[in-house]
Amino acid sequence: MIARLTANERDEALAALVGWAPVKDRDAMTRTFMFADFKEAFAFMTRVALAAEKMDHHPEWSNIYKTVTITLSTHEANGLTRRDIDLAKIIDGFV
Amino acid sequence: MIARLTANERDEALAALVGWAPVKDRDAMTRTFMFADFKEAFAFMTRVALAAEKMDHHPEWSNIYKTVTITLSTHEANGLTRRDIDLAKIIDGFV
Repeated sequence: MIARLTANERDEALAALVGWAPVKDRDAMTRTFMFADFKEAFAFMTRVALAAEKMDHHPEWSNIYKTVTITLSTHEANGLTRRDIDLAKIIDGFV
Repeated sequence: MIARLTANERDEALAALVGWAPVKDRDAMTRTFMFADFKEAFAFMTRVALAAEKMDHHPEWSNIYKTVTITLSTHEANGLTRRDIDLAKIIDGFV
């Protein structure tokens, strides 16, 4: 069982990430990514999907044409954990 | 400029599709697909993405683990058009 980040750990982790914001009324974080077009957006999604599957930790996400919105949280911990921070860093490396 | 379906055309088209429901307060339709796991869900999304790009008509969609929710509407017509029905039929062919 993976532990939720403490409030301090969470604040520190969010401060170290660029573009990720806390989600209202939920222990989760979200970031919206804009691309040139759908092809670029889906290419990014494919890279994220492969990384997520590899770490067995999956995003909640949506796509409309060139916009991708990703929300991260850890289901089994019911909140943000180290896994979300690690996945966010990997995702940020793709843009 | 592609024309919105008339109310009759829309009702007929929706009646001929399985699993697609009108969206509340919007001229759009939505269907939720469930798969065995994330790999299956994303494999489906990849097929949909390629088909959408080919017809230059893109879905609004979201994914959480093994669930994919797709909403179709035509931006430039501000509502459902023949393109949405065509894309829905292609998508349904993937499941």
